[in-house]
Amino acid sequence: MKNDFILKGNICYSETMDRLWVAEQQYVICVDGKSAGVFSEIPEKYQGLPVKDCGDALIVPGMVDLHAHAPQYAFRGLGMDLELLEWLNTHTFPEEAKYASEVYAKRAYTMYVEELKKSDVTRAVIFATMHVEGTKILMELLEDSGLSAYVGKVNMDRNGGKDLEEKSAEKSLEETKRWLAETDGRFQHVRPILTPRFIPSCTDELMRGLAELQKEKKLPVQSHLSENPGEIAWVKELCPNVSNYSEAYEQFGLFGGDCPTIMAHCIWMEEDEIEKMKNNQVYVAHCPQSNMNLSSGIAPVRRFLSEGIPTGLGSDMAAGYSTSIFRAMADAIQCSKMRWRLVDDTQKPLTVEEAFYLGTKGGGAFFGKVGSFEEGYEFDALILDDSNIAHPQKLTVRDRLERMIYLSDDRHITEKYVSGRKVK
Amino acid sequence: MKNDFILKGNICYSETMDRLWVAEQQYVICVDGKSAGVFSEIPEKYQGLPVKDCGDALIVPGMVDLHAHAPQYAFRGLGMDLELLEWLNTHTFPEEAKYASEVYAKRAYTMYVEELKKSDVTRAVIFATMHVEGTKILMELLEDSGLSAYVGKVNMDRNGGKDLEEKSAEKSLEETKRWLAETDGRFQHVRPILTPRFIPSCTDELMRGLAELQKEKKLPVQSHLSENPGEIAWVKELCPNVSNYSEAYEQFGLFGGDCPTIMAHCIWMEEDEIEKMKNNQVYVAHCPQSNMNLSSGIAPVRRFLSEGIPTGLGSDMAAGYSTSIFRAMADAIQCSKMRWRLVDDTQKPLTVEEAFYLGTKGGGAFFGKVGSFEEGYEFDALILDDSNIAHPQKLTVRDRLERMIYLSDDRHITEKYVSGRKVK
Repeated sequence: MKNDFILKGNICYSETMDRLWVAEQQYVICVDGKSAGVFSEIPEKYQGLPVKDCGDALIVPGMVDLHAHAPQYAFRGLGMDLELLEWLNTHTFPEEAKYASEVYAKRAYTMYVEELKKSDVTRAVIFATMHVEGTKILMELLEDSGLSAYVGKVNMDRNGGKDLEEKSAEKSLEETKRWLAETDGRFQHVRPILTPRFIPSCTDELMRGLAELQKEKKLPVQSHLSENPGEIAWVKELCPNVSNYSEAYEQFGLFGGDCPTIMAHCIWMEEDEIEKMKNNQVYVAHCPQSNMNLSSGIAPVRRFLSEGIPTGLGSDMAAGYSTSIFRAMADAIQCSKMRWRLVDDTQKPLTVEEAFYLGTKGGGAFFGKVGSFEEGYEFDALILDDSNIAHPQKLTVRDRLERMIYLSDDRHITEKYVSGRKVK
Repeated sequence: MKNDFILKGNICYSETMDRLWVAEQQYVICVDGKSAGVFSEIPEKYQGLPVKDCGDALIVPGMVDLHAHAPQYAFRGLGMDLELLEWLNTHTFPEEAKYASEVYAKRAYTMYVEELKKSDVTRAVIFATMHVEGTKILMELLEDSGLSAYVGKVNMDRNGGKDLEEKSAEKSLEETKRWLAETDGRFQHVRPILTPRFIPSCTDELMRGLAELQKEKKLPVQSHLSENPGEIAWVKELCPNVSNYSEAYEQFGLFGGDCPTIMAHCIWMEEDEIEKMKNNQVYVAHCPQSNMNLSSGIAPVRRFLSEGIPTGLGSDMAAGYSTSIFRAMADAIQCSKMRWRLVDDTQKPLTVEEAFYLGTKGGGAFFGKVGSFEEGYEFDALILDDSNIAHPQKLTVRDRLERMIYLSDDRHITEKYVSGRKVK
């Protein structure tokens, strides 16, 4: 095919959660936007393909951000001396209300998508706002960027205040259907995801309607779960009929199973919630930087991994201030160490290998075969030039990858591919 | 004076721990390497001085790193899946042993000092290694860089293994005296500091000798205190005669009072240790990133501040992987939030204002009048160009400073002054 090609360099990817595959000066082959595998010599049938020699650079799978709020990019790095519920009312909701203006949405979303293009992220699962036009603008910008994304028009028909609340469940559902109809078939790389903000923002009627829509259209769902003790107490008040936060989603059929679901945070989990997530294969979007910034706590990620609950990393822009998933890996490791030391020393900290897995193959699984260079995986790749990071001695490729987790920024990402498309 | 000058821009500095002074489009005046104050109009007597208009940039005091290990820069971002004592034996001591070679020391220290020049740091308090020649090389490089620093030849006459242990207390003291003699009067901006590594590395005889030297030369002292539970247990074994880690230093007179002292970490402090630090005005070098990376814990910084214990921030390169003190501010805030949430909710998290204070005036006090633009303070300044950080709306100067804490890197630091000398 005319767009097929080969990259040569130092290739790393996660084989399993705790096993990193490292191939020095080998070839990874892109055929039809997918990896045909990694080889020490170019197999005969691919010998006509163009080879890009990346020299001593590292070649790794693209990173997956399982949870981000595009409209919050505008106030990243600001106003983080508050907990979740205060932070939503003081900073987040007033900012998101501005996206009623298409002019503002276009200006602000353009900045976010530009940043995402420069970053290590190739795929993201994103909250927009409740506004249909703004959400469409975000989807267009992402499509143009070449990145792959799920984007959700947010549903919220209660507790948003006068400027950020849909008038009724009916109106929220109507707008959601309009958004789905108006974007249907328009994009190649951007797909819709149903996005009830979180239980406190959504009436039962709205949740029931979304569940119907989910079944009808077979759409995935994203939301928030058990981020903050105050939030959890509020959910218990709002839903006296269920025994925990997870059940508040599950009662409507919006919690995994036939409904592919990502839940962000999952910090303060009860035993039977963990069981439910495992049985329903609900994805955890672990957002360590956000969880520190909003004083939320530290999720039991080791537990999720040992239970076989699918888990990836999220920036949670802008409760997390960085778009980088390398940074999220570093934060995840640090948080897991603090959790081991301060909360539960039976759950050992995450390793570099595990954190790398979470940010690539772990989160990537939500998109299908994504986050690896094994044969058949989507060809999402980063070329990393670390030559400006001075070191007085020879380092192994594995050590250089570890350094990227801790020391890289957008300057080190010299090229980026999504399903074989060059996007940077 | 011929080197006096004026900077015009958006000026921020800490007046007190919780009060940030913000002066938009004002003038800060450098006379004889010191600040003559901040003015909305240039006072008559300074009207002949050259004015550099920094446009819309921010002008802030230089940052102070109260704790860093220069020889560890070579393995920053590597091998952090270990706790303190294992990490020392596996990574740190073998690396530090290489600094017996002057060739290696020069190559590796040059990289560190180059990085420090680009960073937000204007002053640092640094551990070298036990090697006299290497330590002198580091001091020369720092002097040439224009930065201001305290540098310590490390003392360690036990538990360093065969390659990183001085033969005896006597030999360690001899080498220390030789180092002091050979560097005496050679540097303008770099001063020596006595550096017993930590109690497990130093025999009583060595500590007694260092205490004598301290009294004779009136030198300051730096060391480590209560970083890790395993370390603390070991100190208790090694020093059965004292009741806690602080007393292990204090018994020799190496714990504040007439002996200006910085102790790094101070995480697991007993009540009477806090009392002692307060009475003796021992400086805490709070190193939040290191404390996360080595699973050490979170220091009670709010407590130190409310007790009036002098406190600043440290990178703890390379248990901390970043040289940036802006980053240390962000980490300090995040750690304090985790401590509030997980350990002690009576001690509220640090604010942006407090973290900024710690990284400037708080740590700066160890150097004298450093870390502010109030009249008489050393003219240490950073010019910060944040124009490449896109935002869709007008921000206040205070908000822009908050963003720098979370989002800045070396690209944003366009100029740097130390005591009025331009070093970047």
